[in-house]
Amino acid sequence: MDWQAQLEAYIAPRKRLVDDALETYLAENPPRPRTLPEAMRYAVLGGGKRFRPILCIAAAEALGVPATQVLPTACALELIHAFSLVHDDLPAMDNDHLRRNQPTVWVKYSEAMAILAGDALFAKAFELLAEQARLSPPERVAQVLHLIAVASGTEGMCGGQVEDILCEGQAIGEAELRFIHSHKTGALIRASVLAGALLAGADSAQQDALDAYSRALGLAFQIIDDVLDETASTEQLGKTAGADRARRKATYPALFGIETARQHAEQAKQDALNALRPFDERADPLRWLALYTVARGS
Amino acid sequence: MDWQAQLEAYIAPRKRLVDDALETYLAENPPRPRTLPEAMRYAVLGGGKRFRPILCIAAAEALGVPATQVLPTACALELIHAFSLVHDDLPAMDNDHLRRNQPTVWVKYSEAMAILAGDALFAKAFELLAEQARLSPPERVAQVLHLIAVASGTEGMCGGQVEDILCEGQAIGEAELRFIHSHKTGALIRASVLAGALLAGADSAQQDALDAYSRALGLAFQIIDDVLDETASTEQLGKTAGADRARRKATYPALFGIETARQHAEQAKQDALNALRPFDERADPLRWLALYTVARGS
Repeated sequence: MDWQAQLEAYIAPRKRLVDDALETYLAENPPRPRTLPEAMRYAVLGGGKRFRPILCIAAAEALGVPATQVLPTACALELIHAFSLVHDDLPAMDNDHLRRNQPTVWVKYSEAMAILAGDALFAKAFELLAEQARLSPPERVAQVLHLIAVASGTEGMCGGQVEDILCEGQAIGEAELRFIHSHKTGALIRASVLAGALLAGADSAQQDALDAYSRALGLAFQIIDDVLDETASTEQLGKTAGADRARRKATYPALFGIETARQHAEQAKQDALNALRPFDERADPLRWLALYTVARGS
Repeated sequence: MDWQAQLEAYIAPRKRLVDDALETYLAENPPRPRTLPEAMRYAVLGGGKRFRPILCIAAAEALGVPATQVLPTACALELIHAFSLVHDDLPAMDNDHLRRNQPTVWVKYSEAMAILAGDALFAKAFELLAEQARLSPPERVAQVLHLIAVASGTEGMCGGQVEDILCEGQAIGEAELRFIHSHKTGALIRASVLAGALLAGADSAQQDALDAYSRALGLAFQIIDDVLDETASTEQLGKTAGADRARRKATYPALFGIETARQHAEQAKQDALNALRPFDERADPLRWLALYTVARGS
């Protein structure tokens, strides 16, 4: 079997596990509040690769801990990802109308409902982190809570989005671009890998290796995302293609050209694979995920 | 000394402790992201009674645990309160221009910055809850995390705000009004009291008593808030007076008239005091806080 087939066989049952758990976690339908639970489900259950939950699970499994033991945290990471998309799509931010080939949450419901659905998804994520304490030693959960909270806030996602918005339409350099990407998407990808590792009891050498892996993976992921925005169709992306260029967003292709951007992604992939050298074949899914991340863009 | 003077003497040093800690927690000023840390400080440090942190501290102290032992959680509660105000003030929500006699965050910065500052404050709150694990047994912190996450989301603040917005301009009954208030403000007030109690190791009878206290207190607080919106001036409130009526919001005075609303608040105050009967004089600050909550409105 080639790595693509192996990765597919690895992902399928785990994605089902995550999708079922998300379904359960978001199932409540009380008479009040109206609309909000539906808007939250719409934001989360309408598709998505579940890349962050899979990373969290693959990191835990690389250290011998099964997926079911980290499931609440894996799902929390997906909720945080969904929350960030719902808010980023708002008119005051990226003003996006299409996501996963469907109207964005604010288009389908309202701006107010999108703001609150994002907030409620973020809150729900932390509720799931509290549930993780039934499965893992609470000291580890506290570490993961800190990691994920920092990755979501000023020093992570929110900070990256602020700079992304402030830099729109401006000529920026590589340092600024790296800041935006490492914060806006890189921080949560890193947190996904490290959360799985911490819950699985990684020692500090293992944490360092997976930290290096996740940083390189996050970089490769974002470069390829930028490349796809230029080269793929709206239908392939499920969101408006060429939106970055239209908005004069800072991207790797804008700075380096598409070919050089692809080479940077290739180098980041190698760095990610090198970081995994100390691990045995239980880390193969993490290796395939690095291959997949870059193969998407060619 | 009358209770007002005793409460003032109780609050002053604890408010200083909270204000100093908030100052420290929000002090970072890295070169990037720009503006966001400043907007967060603007939202939090420009004043405020610190009612929720004081409740958390008073509950802990009622059980013999000093303020410094619950300080990260007390501050987290204030950040969540501030986050909710920043988002509620947005044009898509309540469209408020004035808060604490100053321009609201979105007016001073931008809508995008206000959305992200709110998100980042919410994230920071959970970072502080993780820090609480250095001071308290991590199992208790996990319980508090769950409590506060639920109080912030669909079953709490966000759920209340959704119904508040959906009910604007509509004739509603007491059940709907109670839902809105018990969720929008009541849930976080309850969580503030119970968080302090849980961190202090409250047994289940103590938790139940403080639960009853906090529900009654939250109700009294919200009724008086509604009354003040009708009877106080914009300058006294620090926000636009009569805004509820102008927006045809559901309020207690709108439903019952001002005098009957005041009587309901008085009854809630009695319920709060009765709930505290099992506690000794270390719970006096909680008693004074109930007296204060209702005295504000007369």
